[in-house]
Amino acid sequence: MKICVFGTGSVGETLGTKLLELGHEVKMGSRTASNEKALAWVKKSGPQASTGAFAEAAKFGELVINATLGAGTIEAFKMAGAEHTAGKVIIDLSNPLDFSKGMPPSLFLSNTDSLGEALQREFPRARVVKALNTMWCGLMVNPRLLPESHHTFMAGNDAAAKETVKGLLQSFGWKPEEIVDVGDITAARATESVLPIWLRLYGTMKTGAFNFKIVR
Amino acid sequence: MKICVFGTGSVGETLGTKLLELGHEVKMGSRTASNEKALAWVKKSGPQASTGAFAEAAKFGELVINATLGAGTIEAFKMAGAEHTAGKVIIDLSNPLDFSKGMPPSLFLSNTDSLGEALQREFPRARVVKALNTMWCGLMVNPRLLPESHHTFMAGNDAAAKETVKGLLQSFGWKPEEIVDVGDITAARATESVLPIWLRLYGTMKTGAFNFKIVR
Repeated sequence: MKICVFGTGSVGETLGTKLLELGHEVKMGSRTASNEKALAWVKKSGPQASTGAFAEAAKFGELVINATLGAGTIEAFKMAGAEHTAGKVIIDLSNPLDFSKGMPPSLFLSNTDSLGEALQREFPRARVVKALNTMWCGLMVNPRLLPESHHTFMAGNDAAAKETVKGLLQSFGWKPEEIVDVGDITAARATESVLPIWLRLYGTMKTGAFNFKIVR
Repeated sequence: MKICVFGTGSVGETLGTKLLELGHEVKMGSRTASNEKALAWVKKSGPQASTGAFAEAAKFGELVINATLGAGTIEAFKMAGAEHTAGKVIIDLSNPLDFSKGMPPSLFLSNTDSLGEALQREFPRARVVKALNTMWCGLMVNPRLLPESHHTFMAGNDAAAKETVKGLLQSFGWKPEEIVDVGDITAARATESVLPIWLRLYGTMKTGAFNFKIVR
């Protein structure tokens, strides 16, 4: 499958590399086609990897993964152009982290709104699925790093898009019962609200290699 | 120990009853000494149970448990009188749930503030410890209902108060390693922010008999 990954940070690189390992063609999108981190990733990743500006990357991808910083997400998709994401599944990994008010960061959208909703609102023809945003990227693509079962949440308005995302997550190693559909895109408020406790635990435990398991 | 429980709902009653079972004297506090639910609870609970208006109850308690609705918490403690909670440990179980904007409820304090902080701010001589607010009350007092280990969070400014709370939680059946200190009272922002995902899962799973386990 042709997949576009927005974002050249550790999340984007981790996802991009995993997708290549799984046999996908991956184009990493950023503001400019000459982004140095993107070019370096392509160089070490081989012929199935490429890079391009957001618009070019979005046009290439049959599926778009958003791994940009939350503060830059909406602008990135505007640069991409709504016509290049229309009808496509967007897996939104981002969080609306606000680093301007000290550490740990607060959220610039929360409680009665979310970044997932804002993205869906701004691009109504895209099929946004909020997923994987509640953990360290190493676990997103390799859930079996942890010694026992744990959970990831999924929120979105499009049932078929969620099935697509579920399939991709299973190819990462997630078991079907570990992928919890928490509702429509307004449930992104809930999954993004996991960040405050995640950040406190990260501060306490000094590692991101943990996740939450729903015990019942 | 003489313990006062603010609130006559299911959380207050569950806590009160558990504390009686553990041999404590419990006074349930409410707006009026003639609260019918409190009187009914006393009647069925025996001689170690009593009830009184918030001020009388707070005066009685060596330790105060806040199980009021979030919307009534600050007012309840004002009615109790700051002099009756000064120096005492307050275990704050409440959540700032706002039911006015539809279901699931949103939070009337969140992100850069919390109800735990508001309570500590308003009553600086009280020793507020936010704890147990991230789960159904049946699990608060009987964590072993679930088939495996799970976690509860604790936030507060007073280390000795946290030790007191940790001891009480252990008497409920919590293992020391299941009680996670996430920092000072500002970390109540994080534990109260667990509610949105808890509420979505509750809506999906149709049971409150679940909790989160930190897997690492």
